[in-house]
Amino acid sequence: MFLSGTKQTRKKIMVMGGDGFCGWPTSLHLSNAGHEVIIVDNLSRREIDVELEAESLTPIQPLGKRLEAWEDITGKTIRFHRINIAEQFDALLHLLVTEQPDAIVHFAEQRSAPYSMKSAAHKRYTVDNNMNATHNLLAAVVESGLDIHLVHLGTMGVYGYGTAGMAIPEGYLDVEVTTEAGERVEQQILYPTNPGSVYHMTKSQDQLLFQFYNKNDRIRITDLHQGIVWGTNTEETKLDERLINRFDYDGDYGTVLNRFLMQAAVGYPMTVHGTGGQTRAFIHIQDTVRCIELAIAHPPSPDEKVLIFNQMTETHRVRDLAEMIAGLTGAEVAYVDNPRNEAAENDLHVKNELFLSKGLQPITLNEGLLTEVTKVAEEYSHRADMDKIPARSTWTRSHKPGIPGEKASK
Amino acid sequence: MFLSGTKQTRKKIMVMGGDGFCGWPTSLHLSNAGHEVIIVDNLSRREIDVELEAESLTPIQPLGKRLEAWEDITGKTIRFHRINIAEQFDALLHLLVTEQPDAIVHFAEQRSAPYSMKSAAHKRYTVDNNMNATHNLLAAVVESGLDIHLVHLGTMGVYGYGTAGMAIPEGYLDVEVTTEAGERVEQQILYPTNPGSVYHMTKSQDQLLFQFYNKNDRIRITDLHQGIVWGTNTEETKLDERLINRFDYDGDYGTVLNRFLMQAAVGYPMTVHGTGGQTRAFIHIQDTVRCIELAIAHPPSPDEKVLIFNQMTETHRVRDLAEMIAGLTGAEVAYVDNPRNEAAENDLHVKNELFLSKGLQPITLNEGLLTEVTKVAEEYSHRADMDKIPARSTWTRSHKPGIPGEKASK
Ligand SMILES: NC(=O)c1ccc[n+]([C@@H]2O[C@H](COP(=O)([O-])OP(=O)(O)OC[C@H]3O[C@@H](n4cnc5c(N)ncnc54)[C@H](O)[C@@H]3O)[C@@H](O)[C@H]2O)c1
Ligand SMILES: NC(=O)c1ccc[n+]([C@@H]2O[C@H](COP(=O)([O-])OP(=O)(O)OC[C@H]3O[C@@H](n4cnc5c(N)ncnc54)[C@H](O)[C@@H]3O)[C@@H](O)[C@H]2O)c1
Repeated sequence: MFLSGTKQTRKKIMVMGGDGFCGWPTSLHLSNAGHEVIIVDNLSRREIDVELEAESLTPIQPLGKRLEAWEDITGKTIRFHRINIAEQFDALLHLLVTEQPDAIVHFAEQRSAPYSMKSAAHKRYTVDNNMNATHNLLAAVVESGLDIHLVHLGTMGVYGYGTAGMAIPEGYLDVEVTTEAGERVEQQILYPTNPGSVYHMTKSQDQLLFQFYNKNDRIRITDLHQGIVWGTNTEETKLDERLINRFDYDGDYGTVLNRFLMQAAVGYPMTVHGTGGQTRAFIHIQDTVRCIELAIAHPPSPDEKVLIFNQMTETHRVRDLAEMIAGLTGAEVAYVDNPRNEAAENDLHVKNELFLSKGLQPITLNEGLLTEVTKVAEEYSHRADMDKIPARSTWTRSHKPGIPGEKASK
Repeated sequence: MFLSGTKQTRKKIMVMGGDGFCGWPTSLHLSNAGHEVIIVDNLSRREIDVELEAESLTPIQPLGKRLEAWEDITGKTIRFHRINIAEQFDALLHLLVTEQPDAIVHFAEQRSAPYSMKSAAHKRYTVDNNMNATHNLLAAVVESGLDIHLVHLGTMGVYGYGTAGMAIPEGYLDVEVTTEAGERVEQQILYPTNPGSVYHMTKSQDQLLFQFYNKNDRIRITDLHQGIVWGTNTEETKLDERLINRFDYDGDYGTVLNRFLMQAAVGYPMTVHGTGGQTRAFIHIQDTVRCIELAIAHPPSPDEKVLIFNQMTETHRVRDLAEMIAGLTGAEVAYVDNPRNEAAENDLHVKNELFLSKGLQPITLNEGLLTEVTKVAEEYSHRADMDKIPARSTWTRSHKPGIPGEKASK
């Protein structure tokens, strides 16, 4: 799998979407580790804040200020190019050819499931942006003629949360099929996905792009199927308040944990969707940046198929998360209708041996959650806009239940 | 599968891409059968003719003239709207809401594999056009709130031509997997695709769009995985020369059979790629339009998953096709390098019981080929531009062989 004995050498790394929640701490972490880092971003995430009239709880500086602060504190430079990689192909290609990066980390997609379901326009933006962003990157790498390792962030959500009691494998599935001669033959296939939103669907489509370009053009690709990222800061973003990372708690971009933390911090009951029986996979942002560093250090060999890892460290039921936070803060739990078209209860067993075998020592919710409560949610609670917490996207026009046995809301 | 006992009633049908090679005869066939037909097309295929400096061998009239001729001859009216469905979402939605069609047949995609591989720009156009066309249609159907049956044309090419000696099933595959408890469980999954070009890859991505919108919004969808369409005219296009259908023979849009026919008609040797051992699936254009009529007559029920049929009637090795035409015309066969990244020899066994069980009486190459030679290739051979026949797209920058054992060209 990983090329064994790969040395940790200084690399030139482009971070697409390097102004975002995962991209910013990744850029700092890689820069701190001695790599040369170039951020590419079109700042669309900041424009979406304007559209949604929602803001990060933590005060985010303009990117120029962030980069200045990083140079002040560490003496290290990170360069920035404002490019819409879904639209400005020529600028993207020109940048690859002039900079000749060793690796590209690709975060530059619309990543909120509720946002992707808000309206026809939001569905269309998500498909158009995500498909063209990923495809332009692949076409540009081919066109550049360079041997660039592409590390992409996918999502655990493509698996469709739990099938037939199988542990979710790392990307590929061994199946048995019957030949015309009646023989049983073992085959390895891409795990058949069952995405639950337009956003997740684009990540399934990304997999087909990777499979094709890997096969046809021998591009080296690592696809990280990531769980829900929690936690706000990393060793680097804690160095100075100007480097602070995003903390989204609104109904579209705030993941379940952050919305609970916010509600608890300001003394509201935590709103659990449905029975809260949905199991989700989680990873701390500090572990995200370490996993990406590991993925860059261990590219697949040129003849290898796309490497797929599950980038997560633990699973929890949503109601158990609420109880955990209730235990830390004394907040209450309230059960409300689920806007998503999904099964009320599910189990989730995930294989994640690859990162653990590379020495990852995960931060658990048990140890990290208190810091989030006190250092982030409570410290910045004066900036909170409680109107933004409820999830207002519905998955269908009439919100008819998509799964038998599921309770419908109006 | 099919709703049994569905009566053949007059329906309002929109044909997206109704000016194209399959779309035009389908529109006439459905109109002749008594349905109300509305064509939507952006005429991009005619613009690509201009770009490639290639033309249909048969003389194609402007769409306005075609529709006038149809009305002259049959007294039936087909209306036309020029809309780019990949870009003009509002116009598309407005049309659905005002016309309230019962069914939409979706042909409106860039459909040439060599064209999709010509350059980065052609790859990008194909992905952008095909993804947004299909997704806009789905999002518009949801937004309209109407119960519209969507019939889409996919391709046999997504299957990747032959896997492990299995007969290619109709879309879904039964597999056995091992659960955590060690049990073997049967599951039905979307056939894991292995597309061979950017064009084919977009058809695999289409499948994910259909799966999602069918599951989330209960859209009724029939996806027809079509073989290579051969033959030029149908009962309706034969009625008047102004109604004649396209015959493409250029290296990009001309399928293998048409290129052979053209070469034979003008006394050139037929150029077979590689060993000619590739097996392909075929269907006559007359059977295409009948299958589409059958698909429209038998929509899935609202709770059914996407119906997938293999729309093909016979398979042949490429070299056997050349021999067949040599037998009819006395032309020679020449073996040249294969520009595609594919296995030199493959078998192909395809299940197509569904259409046969509905009473389709296929036209075979054996009986239809002579008409193509005399009534089309020879009759219009004075219009042929022999420079356009060779396939000039290569699949990779250096055309390195993508499959072990495959011979490389420079
Ligand atoms: N946050 C999570 O919990 C989580 C979980 C699983 C997977 N992921 C994946 O990780 C990646 C990053 O997620 P995030 O939480 O940092 O999201 P984010 O929205 O905070 O960051 C994405 C960044 O990409 C940029 N971007 C988007 N489209 C672009 C384009 N066309 N051109 C240039 N820049 C563009 C945005 O401006 C933003 O800065 C996403 O692909 C997401 O799907 C995130
Ligand atoms: N011809 C074959 O052998 C074959 C085989 C298998 C599958 N198919 C599928 O059948 C469908 C039709 O194939 P064809 O041979 O008729 O192709 P074609 O190129 O002749 O016709 C496609 C039509 O769609 C129109 N179109 C394309 N993009 C559009 C857009 N964004 N908005 C509006 N109109 C648009 C074009 O102008 C053209 O008239 C394709 O989806 C193709 O993949 C064809």
